[in-house]
Amino acid sequence: MDINQESLKMHYELGGKIEVISRKKIETREDLSLAYTPGVAEPCRVIAKDYEQSFLLTRRQNLVAVVTDGTAVLGLGDIGPAAGMPVMEGKCALFKEFAGVDAFPICIDSKDVDTIVQTVYLISKSFGGINLEDISAPRCFEVERRLKELCDIPVFHDDQHGTAIVVAAALINAAKVTGKEMGKMRIVINGAGAAGIAIGKLLIRMGFGNVIMCDINGIICEGDEGLNPGQEEISHISNAAHEHGLLADAMKGADAFIGVSRPNLVTKEMVASMNRGIVFAMANPVPEIMPDEAKAGGAAVVGTGRSDFPNQINNVLVFPGLFKGALSVRAKEITETMKERAAYAIAGMIPEAELTAENVIPSPLDKSVADVVAKAVADTAVEEGIARAAVR
Amino acid sequence: MDINQESLKMHYELGGKIEVISRKKIETREDLSLAYTPGVAEPCRVIAKDYEQSFLLTRRQNLVAVVTDGTAVLGLGDIGPAAGMPVMEGKCALFKEFAGVDAFPICIDSKDVDTIVQTVYLISKSFGGINLEDISAPRCFEVERRLKELCDIPVFHDDQHGTAIVVAAALINAAKVTGKEMGKMRIVINGAGAAGIAIGKLLIRMGFGNVIMCDINGIICEGDEGLNPGQEEISHISNAAHEHGLLADAMKGADAFIGVSRPNLVTKEMVASMNRGIVFAMANPVPEIMPDEAKAGGAAVVGTGRSDFPNQINNVLVFPGLFKGALSVRAKEITETMKERAAYAIAGMIPEAELTAENVIPSPLDKSVADVVAKAVADTAVEEGIARAAVR
Repeated sequence: MDINQESLKMHYELGGKIEVISRKKIETREDLSLAYTPGVAEPCRVIAKDYEQSFLLTRRQNLVAVVTDGTAVLGLGDIGPAAGMPVMEGKCALFKEFAGVDAFPICIDSKDVDTIVQTVYLISKSFGGINLEDISAPRCFEVERRLKELCDIPVFHDDQHGTAIVVAAALINAAKVTGKEMGKMRIVINGAGAAGIAIGKLLIRMGFGNVIMCDINGIICEGDEGLNPGQEEISHISNAAHEHGLLADAMKGADAFIGVSRPNLVTKEMVASMNRGIVFAMANPVPEIMPDEAKAGGAAVVGTGRSDFPNQINNVLVFPGLFKGALSVRAKEITETMKERAAYAIAGMIPEAELTAENVIPSPLDKSVADVVAKAVADTAVEEGIARAAVR
Repeated sequence: MDINQESLKMHYELGGKIEVISRKKIETREDLSLAYTPGVAEPCRVIAKDYEQSFLLTRRQNLVAVVTDGTAVLGLGDIGPAAGMPVMEGKCALFKEFAGVDAFPICIDSKDVDTIVQTVYLISKSFGGINLEDISAPRCFEVERRLKELCDIPVFHDDQHGTAIVVAAALINAAKVTGKEMGKMRIVINGAGAAGIAIGKLLIRMGFGNVIMCDINGIICEGDEGLNPGQEEISHISNAAHEHGLLADAMKGADAFIGVSRPNLVTKEMVASMNRGIVFAMANPVPEIMPDEAKAGGAAVVGTGRSDFPNQINNVLVFPGLFKGALSVRAKEITETMKERAAYAIAGMIPEAELTAENVIPSPLDKSVADVVAKAVADTAVEEGIARAAVR
């Protein structure tokens, strides 16, 4: 049986990947009186007087909503809210398994930005954080921006920032392995959608060097026509030399290629034209170039999104610990510095002595990563003065 | 320490009464490939092709949203969405503990009927059923009516119908104990809000006899001015003889008094004026008349909402099993016949030989009730042709 059929069978047998349980056995009259009426009136009164207490007296203290509209689910595209749910449930299972964070999937039956924003905002007091998921670009930018303004809890679009953080982590270590100098790298990102733009912005902010964004038409340059707002925004800070050309042109002399695009777009020759290139070919399930091809082209480090090759770059290394940290100190938001520190925390999980071209990023199954990321995020929140609770 | 302080302490220590767990351990690459990418794409594809499969492939098959706007929480009134959450979490804990049904609390930060309806509808594909809770009248009627029209899953306002069902169950047995004849009873309901009206409608439908609704101004009669839509609706089917007067007038010769109103409104003398009265005084925490007073007035059967007296009439006997049954056959809605059959199922839990004036309703802690209610509801759904799955 192939993995798809096996997964389908597992889903039918399991009957849902998550479950809501009671943290309190209810067997006696006293149990009922404490967990429900009449005793429960007291925590209600306390929250009514002091809203902040809701983070101590209810589960929102450890609870993330995984929200989608089902428009950009995996490589499947716009399959609708109900069909997106197996992915959302899977994500929720990962939150719990990797960081002990409770997560609950919410699919919203609308593609309208205003409607999505309003719906999420109106239910946000049930949660401690909002993880936006698989919402198509460019709507995802607007949804996230507006929810960040409205909500008093962290809002984080994982497809953008989780991906950016894990790529940055891998790139930190790949740069070390190859002796490339931070600030002097030429980095080509192919795919200027939600993930690509977020990666570009984070790498630029972290000072990796000159980032050149490419889309299907080639290099994106400041002043180009037909850019969407996200592309237009990054065009002002990327491609410093205002280059024009195709992806192959961009890759000449590049130190790193980061693909969040489509299968088989990159040839061995293009890799050979790089400067001992770091190649992160993350299109799923088939990468922009297969690892053996990339190596044949002289790539110094190769990473993909796949579990059957070394250096699997997967954002499960990010979101569980990131939210765990933010929730633990009741951070009001996820800041740029938190993202940066999370990337360094992940990179730091591999001791210098163990760094090799085949080992620039921890295994996605390494559950010790989440706590380290959580601590980095929580510490940052405290330093930035946006924590509402002491580090627990 | 009193029950309130003890409950508050428990809430702080527990840090939330519910928890979302993964039903699948995720420890190996295979686990990750089956529960998440790439395998999870297959159940997504299957649902995208056939929406009904979402009830088999995701947790919505066993999942209820407990939704509130926080406007009518316990006796506390409009305390807002965040402050209502301890009650909602408690309710979710009861769903799981009593019937194995997963339930998740959602508080909506709006009091506008249109907004509440839209918000719940837009997230309804994440769930298998909607339990509306503690939404104030008369908005609750409109919210429920419109959501029932819009949603393809059961929508049930527990404060109305859960209360009505458990009262009907107690009344079935109390009538047996007292030898009162169905169809010939005179029943006075004091409190013409959401619960009172729902009780009245169900008792009338079930053929108990003449129901007389009272509110703070006394008996409600067809044609009265100032009735809200719910009161106006029931005025056409209640108070057959078009009586006028005060609660004390209504109670003269009555077979049953059902109070969902306020403490200490009923005197011993009023009970004495009844016809060997059944007195269900359910105001919480202080009933309309204390049981010893009611008995001193000659009450034949006395029930309250309290756990420290016999005959505790509590809708925890209803909602867990009701939703369990509806979910088990994927019923599209909760029908009037289901409610009626649920009431008879609960009443039937007490063998005739054990029926006494002090034992007309099972203990709220009797966890065997839920399965019996579930079976009655599921069977009814199948008979009515509104089940989308065979009885499991």
